[in-house]
Amino acid sequence: MSEFLERSHTAGTSGAASQAVGRQSIGFTRPPAILGGASVVGSKEGDGPLGHLFDRVNEDPLCGKSTWEQAESEMQRQALALALGKLSLEPGDVRYLFAGDLLGQIIATSFGARDMEIPLFGLYGACSTIGEALQLGAMAVGGGYAGRVACVASSHLGSAEKQFRFPMGYGNQRPLSATWTVTGAGAFILGEGEGYVRITGITTGKIVDYGVKDSMNMGACMAPAAADTIAGNLEDFGREPEDYDRIITGDLGAVGKEILLKLLRERGYDIGRQHTDCGLEIYDRKRQDVHSGGSGCGCAAATLSAYSLDQIAEGHWRRVLFVPTGALLSTVSFNEGESVPGIAHGVVLEG
Amino acid sequence: MSEFLERSHTAGTSGAASQAVGRQSIGFTRPPAILGGASVVGSKEGDGPLGHLFDRVNEDPLCGKSTWEQAESEMQRQALALALGKLSLEPGDVRYLFAGDLLGQIIATSFGARDMEIPLFGLYGACSTIGEALQLGAMAVGGGYAGRVACVASSHLGSAEKQFRFPMGYGNQRPLSATWTVTGAGAFILGEGEGYVRITGITTGKIVDYGVKDSMNMGACMAPAAADTIAGNLEDFGREPEDYDRIITGDLGAVGKEILLKLLRERGYDIGRQHTDCGLEIYDRKRQDVHSGGSGCGCAAATLSAYSLDQIAEGHWRRVLFVPTGALLSTVSFNEGESVPGIAHGVVLEG
Repeated sequence: MSEFLERSHTAGTSGAASQAVGRQSIGFTRPPAILGGASVVGSKEGDGPLGHLFDRVNEDPLCGKSTWEQAESEMQRQALALALGKLSLEPGDVRYLFAGDLLGQIIATSFGARDMEIPLFGLYGACSTIGEALQLGAMAVGGGYAGRVACVASSHLGSAEKQFRFPMGYGNQRPLSATWTVTGAGAFILGEGEGYVRITGITTGKIVDYGVKDSMNMGACMAPAAADTIAGNLEDFGREPEDYDRIITGDLGAVGKEILLKLLRERGYDIGRQHTDCGLEIYDRKRQDVHSGGSGCGCAAATLSAYSLDQIAEGHWRRVLFVPTGALLSTVSFNEGESVPGIAHGVVLEG
Repeated sequence: MSEFLERSHTAGTSGAASQAVGRQSIGFTRPPAILGGASVVGSKEGDGPLGHLFDRVNEDPLCGKSTWEQAESEMQRQALALALGKLSLEPGDVRYLFAGDLLGQIIATSFGARDMEIPLFGLYGACSTIGEALQLGAMAVGGGYAGRVACVASSHLGSAEKQFRFPMGYGNQRPLSATWTVTGAGAFILGEGEGYVRITGITTGKIVDYGVKDSMNMGACMAPAAADTIAGNLEDFGREPEDYDRIITGDLGAVGKEILLKLLRERGYDIGRQHTDCGLEIYDRKRQDVHSGGSGCGCAAATLSAYSLDQIAEGHWRRVLFVPTGALLSTVSFNEGESVPGIAHGVVLEG
């Protein structure tokens, strides 16, 4: 083990652009920039507290297509096209696309990226996917492999409910612990140079399984993974919660938030003042009947683009730990009696 | 576009460890090494021409577990443990795990990696996944982000047929264009330093869709993507087919091979002498009744570990282009009338 740590440390300092930090983190010596981003959502998200901030609200849940899956692909296309357009870029100006979604064989991405003709790294990290994409995208730019890359993730209420629980038409009742899958997509262009927000570090998550078997309580499945990644980040970088102006999880919702705060208190960290959750920001829980809050890859991705990045760029927040959270739920494993493990990927954002 | 190319070029030469080459490739100035690998297969693969080369043959298709999916997870665990063991390493000696499989929400990986406690990047590239994993793993090591990483991919006949076509018990008839999903897994440990084979370059694939809609003819779905990646590699590096001793696709099988050779001839490249396909190497088509050949993430991964790497290490082959091929098939998109797009990821291996 000591030999590994020594090598790992050597790896980070032998003239390379970046640096391995602690057990599971990277601190970029030349931090890649988020040059720009875009968000696309559905009507319910457009009606929520952040509604005026999204770049595009599709009132038609099918986005003019024939199926939920095609609609989700269309939102990925829209988000990436908008992000490129804001920077006056063409798809060919981006060297790699890091993208994923919740569906089996990530079909929203396959068909969403098909016409872009950008070399693709297909990712699956459940609702943490935009964190995984930003981490790998930052590694690609920070390592000198690409001048610019794009990171995209999406979810859609219709395609997700059909995939994981019940088709929409069935009208199934949902317990109060259930979250509402966000219909939305977020796209980000990373590159060298200034940009408006920099990715200064990343903490890659491990699979954490506390044995929760409730597909209607994703927050409880993901909270242990979020706690593990946040604690790992603080330990690797030698920081305290106060070193972040915000610690933003992806989609724990109200139930998962309580568990997260409790688990971190047990490890000696009180993040009560810093913590917020995209799933609690994107909907008005009193008015919009979403039960525990929002969820899905699109929840963290669209909220980051529409809201959080601007807070950092405008100087309201100086340093943020963004931690999208994923529940590794599958109907196959679930119906075979398996638990729902979680994973969470941390990205340090600075103005 | 010219501004991008300039920036991209700058990105590759401004003191970073690696270099963007052409439109979609990277040439590593400090090539990461494959320090070691391991392969685990089922009984049919053990009975094939490469049977004596695999590290472990599981005669029990369930690998002592209760479901096909658990069996596939177990093979991932076995392959990674064997690869680590050969190098006298523990899971904690590896900084990142890049892994994936064919199943919805990559559950073979989620549950296979659960107990390893290695920070995980979950990948989905269909049967090209081991290529995607080796590319990202090489980028992580080459960029100085990690001293060592692991790359793992798997497939299982039982879990794949249940996922994509018919459950095994149904006894469905298969057309001659169909391939046989390999029950197997391959694991590789990448790191800095010498190792026995070096990854000197990579060419990341785009989604290529010729509109093929036959789920029983994966070779035809993937061949256009393989042709695109191979041509891209030759163009980016300014090479001719003769600059490679072998160009090894993942699982095109006999039908896909014909299409690949034809498509590349149309682009001015004759790879007839260099080309081989893991799907044609792993089974004896005359004796084993596998129709067009082998397929699945495990096909390319296990064949690379058991056979191809040794050919390079022993000096029989000097430089190889390894191109795992993926068909982005999903029952949801397929049943909605969509085509099956392909993707292929190229990895340049040298002794």
